[in-house]
Amino acid sequence: MANDAVLIIGGGPAGLEAARGVAGLGARAILVERRNNLGGAPINERYAALTHGFRDAEEVMNEIIAEVTSEALIDVRLGYSVAAVAGSAGDFTVTLAKEGNGHSDVVNVGAIIVATGFQHFDPGRETQMYGYYEFDDVITLQDSERMLKDRNWVRPSNGESPKRVCFIQCVGSRDRHIGNEYCSKVCCGIASKQAIEIRQQVPDCRVFIFYIDMRMYGYWENEIYWPAQEKYKVQYVKGIVTEILKKGDKLLVRGEDTTMGRPVEVTMDVVVLSNGMEPSAGTKEMARVLGLKQNKYGFIEVPHDALNPTATSVPGIFVSGAAAGPRDLDDSVGTGGAAAMKAVSLARKLARGDLQLANASR
Amino acid sequence: MANDAVLIIGGGPAGLEAARGVAGLGARAILVERRNNLGGAPINERYAALTHGFRDAEEVMNEIIAEVTSEALIDVRLGYSVAAVAGSAGDFTVTLAKEGNGHSDVVNVGAIIVATGFQHFDPGRETQMYGYYEFDDVITLQDSERMLKDRNWVRPSNGESPKRVCFIQCVGSRDRHIGNEYCSKVCCGIASKQAIEIRQQVPDCRVFIFYIDMRMYGYWENEIYWPAQEKYKVQYVKGIVTEILKKGDKLLVRGEDTTMGRPVEVTMDVVVLSNGMEPSAGTKEMARVLGLKQNKYGFIEVPHDALNPTATSVPGIFVSGAAAGPRDLDDSVGTGGAAAMKAVSLARKLARGDLQLANASR
Repeated sequence: MANDAVLIIGGGPAGLEAARGVAGLGARAILVERRNNLGGAPINERYAALTHGFRDAEEVMNEIIAEVTSEALIDVRLGYSVAAVAGSAGDFTVTLAKEGNGHSDVVNVGAIIVATGFQHFDPGRETQMYGYYEFDDVITLQDSERMLKDRNWVRPSNGESPKRVCFIQCVGSRDRHIGNEYCSKVCCGIASKQAIEIRQQVPDCRVFIFYIDMRMYGYWENEIYWPAQEKYKVQYVKGIVTEILKKGDKLLVRGEDTTMGRPVEVTMDVVVLSNGMEPSAGTKEMARVLGLKQNKYGFIEVPHDALNPTATSVPGIFVSGAAAGPRDLDDSVGTGGAAAMKAVSLARKLARGDLQLANASR
Repeated sequence: MANDAVLIIGGGPAGLEAARGVAGLGARAILVERRNNLGGAPINERYAALTHGFRDAEEVMNEIIAEVTSEALIDVRLGYSVAAVAGSAGDFTVTLAKEGNGHSDVVNVGAIIVATGFQHFDPGRETQMYGYYEFDDVITLQDSERMLKDRNWVRPSNGESPKRVCFIQCVGSRDRHIGNEYCSKVCCGIASKQAIEIRQQVPDCRVFIFYIDMRMYGYWENEIYWPAQEKYKVQYVKGIVTEILKKGDKLLVRGEDTTMGRPVEVTMDVVVLSNGMEPSAGTKEMARVLGLKQNKYGFIEVPHDALNPTATSVPGIFVSGAAAGPRDLDDSVGTGGAAAMKAVSLARKLARGDLQLANASR
């Protein structure tokens, strides 16, 4: 039966904002999260500070989680996934399956918002030249976030404080060899943010960032990139790292400084791989279950034939956050809110009979 | 008297989406635009193709304009500006003044969305070294858009078809001398889009882009940057242009190729200055009239203390699009939709008495 309830799939920043938005408009939201906790990547990967503003990620996320879990109009289903969908915009019948025990529930909603997000590129999968699985002191952005959060940023191999650290940008992004030609959008900003935090927590440590282009678009430039250089003395080197070798108990980083036009060979205590974004397993699975078109990388395709960044190929199903491609936190929350508006608006028009499905815009 | 009507200031992409969103939720929208037409920069500056998808800007904008003007819940006030505001969230009394004739109207709304956008940096104002007001063949991104739209991309000085064109990035952005340390976010993408269009319309013309970093974040990389290089043979040169001189009837472009580490001196038929974004006069004026905090550049400040990208310093007043800082079209439309949700949600809660103003979140 047609109604204005909205199903939101995924409990990260975009899904939480979508749920909060739907309930704020007086509609019922069913928020399905396959894990047993809300918060998405910032919580599950144990992020340290968020930008803007360097507030603690857990603190910021806990505020929105508290709002969502205390809202009577939101039915939070932890440990559930979406097993099947039937019907169409205004009247979807969705089967939710409890992970593990086979229990299932059927719910009826007017619209669906997909907020299943991304996963971090596995730097061992195809770029093994950087030795992620070989050397303890080669880590990822997420490993680094966790150490920053614990205020214990050390050399994993021996627990000592590092003296020299470098980031290598574009690991798993802008890379035709592995098929990820897209840019992951946030890694330049996150690496620079982490470089600042490392300099704050380990003041004796020198920090280098090897990059192709520093994509500090918009506010990242003035809020992060200038202070990183001027106040925190982070050293940016335009260059390509070709290999990482072991040299004694250090790492030997070999590559080219493209500005100086000469080979580079430097030793580091820790190398952080700035690994990019890929569609999460949940994003690929939901695209299949819901029958949504995906782009060649597996992200959910937005049909960019109009000014409608939360549309999918199926009327009544909307997308927000990084399920549609690399997004920063502002983008994710913004599209979460926009999708809430679109979903409630469409579901109510269809429920009231103000609009016939044949004319339903995406 | 408390009500759920929403005032939207500015009729560009963000404001149009906000108005469409508010009406879609069944609330009344008053859309105030100081000019006598809707559409904002894409219409007033006569943009050619939009990204994603390279659809004609006028065609895309006319679709959303038609939706907005045919919607009974939206009261479009062309040629009006906001002269004064009193009251607070849930109950704002706004004085609208008709430009030119002194006529004024008073409206009562529950919330306000500012969508007053940006203006293009004037490249003659402080960066006179590039000779924008001196040489006819030195033009801006907007001048170039207009020629692309007219399918008449020529040397302005003589009307002939150009053989060599270059873009100079970061004019008015990332520049401490003029106080604009921020990155304008879209100019790398727009220059690359235009380079593709020039190559399509003037196939004999070689196109060069001088850049500091190519900030083709996210989809711009795979949708624009790879094809620009591979299919359209646009030549990207990392370098800094220091001066432009006249040499016969050509322009002599002098600078440094930072990848090759050597001086560059090349002649061009046309030089396009990729001028950045600054807050529009309307954005600065509305910040003053509404009492909104601005950042040091004059954009409306979003208090980034929570996951709330459309908040301002005043409860009940929201911001969308480039009034809050450089934004691309996806961002502008996304935040327009998110602001619509926030505004209607808050205004209705206050009107129903579900929420007291003292507890109103931004």
